Amino acid sequence: MTTSRDQLVRVHNFCISLDGFATGEGQSMDAPFGHAGHRLHEWFFETAMTREQLGLGTGGGRGVDNAMAEAWSPGIGVEIMGRNKFGPQRGPWEDESWRGWWGENPPFHTPVFVLTHHVRPSVEMEGGTVFHFRDASPQDVLAEAKKAANGLDVRIGGGPTVVRDFLAADLVDLLHVVVVPIVLGRGVRLWDGLEGLDERFDIETVSSPSGVVHQTFTRKTS
Amino acid sequence: MTTSRDQLVRVHNFCISLDGFATGEGQSMDAPFGHAGHRLHEWFFETAMTREQLGLGTGGGRGVDNAMAEAWSPGIGVEIMGRNKFGPQRGPWEDESWRGWWGENPPFHTPVFVLTHHVRPSVEMEGGTVFHFRDASPQDVLAEAKKAANGLDVRIGGGPTVVRDFLAADLVDLLHVVVVPIVLGRGVRLWDGLEGLDERFDIETVSSPSGVVHQTFTRKTS
Repeated sequence: MTTSRDQLVRVHNFCISLDGFATGEGQSMDAPFGHAGHRLHEWFFETAMTREQLGLGTGGGRGVDNAMAEAWSPGIGVEIMGRNKFGPQRGPWEDESWRGWWGENPPFHTPVFVLTHHVRPSVEMEGGTVFHFRDASPQDVLAEAKKAANGLDVRIGGGPTVVRDFLAADLVDLLHVVVVPIVLGRGVRLWDGLEGLDERFDIETVSSPSGVVHQTFTRKTS
Repeated sequence: MTTSRDQLVRVHNFCISLDGFATGEGQSMDAPFGHAGHRLHEWFFETAMTREQLGLGTGGGRGVDNAMAEAWSPGIGVEIMGRNKFGPQRGPWEDESWRGWWGENPPFHTPVFVLTHHVRPSVEMEGGTVFHFRDASPQDVLAEAKKAANGLDVRIGGGPTVVRDFLAADLVDLLHVVVVPIVLGRGVRLWDGLEGLDERFDIETVSSPSGVVHQTFTRKTS
């Protein structure tokens, strides 16, 4: 006899400023988060997990920031991301040489569905990551992603527009938001159009000594 | 020999939603915070301090929420508030019978300067509260308020537009924000136009078991 579990749809390590911006203005090749620079993710680069992944040595914190950051990977069988997470280009692809920000061996190690109005052939990377490009609704791409996840969970990787669309469609089971104590002033907001979202989730909040706040939204069981 | 201290400009118990709204839409006589209802202040009404003030008995929490809430009063000699905190009316006063939301003995017990383009004679209440009405810049009303405060501190009481104006003018020394885990979706935001505010303050964050987050912004010493 085997036990099965539902496949969850999860968002992890989703960083926003005090004023709710998940990315700044002016994304470019040199500035994936626009004028936000690295400020939304400094806490992340101080964790033991990230330092190890980037080959920066064995230092780094092993407290609450690291524990929350590490939940990103286990049990994930596929990621869905928006095109603006995949790259800074807009509109039709001028060429298809762009293979993401992450080098030849991206940290995903699963199929990744990239939502875009400009589809292109799939791209197979080292280490198990395969980028598939889809022009589809959240519901449709999620159905395909769940099949590709082999019974494991689906991660919604961002950016903010994609996370917001999945939240608005009530497709998210777990949302981990990290509030960073900066005021960005401009960019793309997470919370727009989500009035009353809190009614659908149990919300747990913990502040970290690093200064960030971890907020965990778990879908209420009916 | 006496020691003197600078008069501080302080904001306390300033509640905002996850998406940064300090008040909802549609303020009216029955709904001082519009569609937000009481949701931004539920934590506040569960504190021992507030229950005692409202004559609700000796219950209520005496933990971090109460401790932060209580810092509102000591050392304050005057409050500055916006007209929308004083009342729901807009434009010229139709009559001057409105004397605030708080009954004949308001909780301020000091002079209160109400910023409005429609000045009217001062109103003296029981318990030491006197409402003065001023059509003035933040700098000018603060100068008058500091004189009236008798060497004590000045509280900026809100609403969000007034707090934002004083922050933009770099007149605030201490800002205590309470982030409540609800998504309001609409209303008046605190953070608009304050990009980079974090650079001027040391920021301490603590989460409360009640679910709210207390963020204390203390002006950096140069």
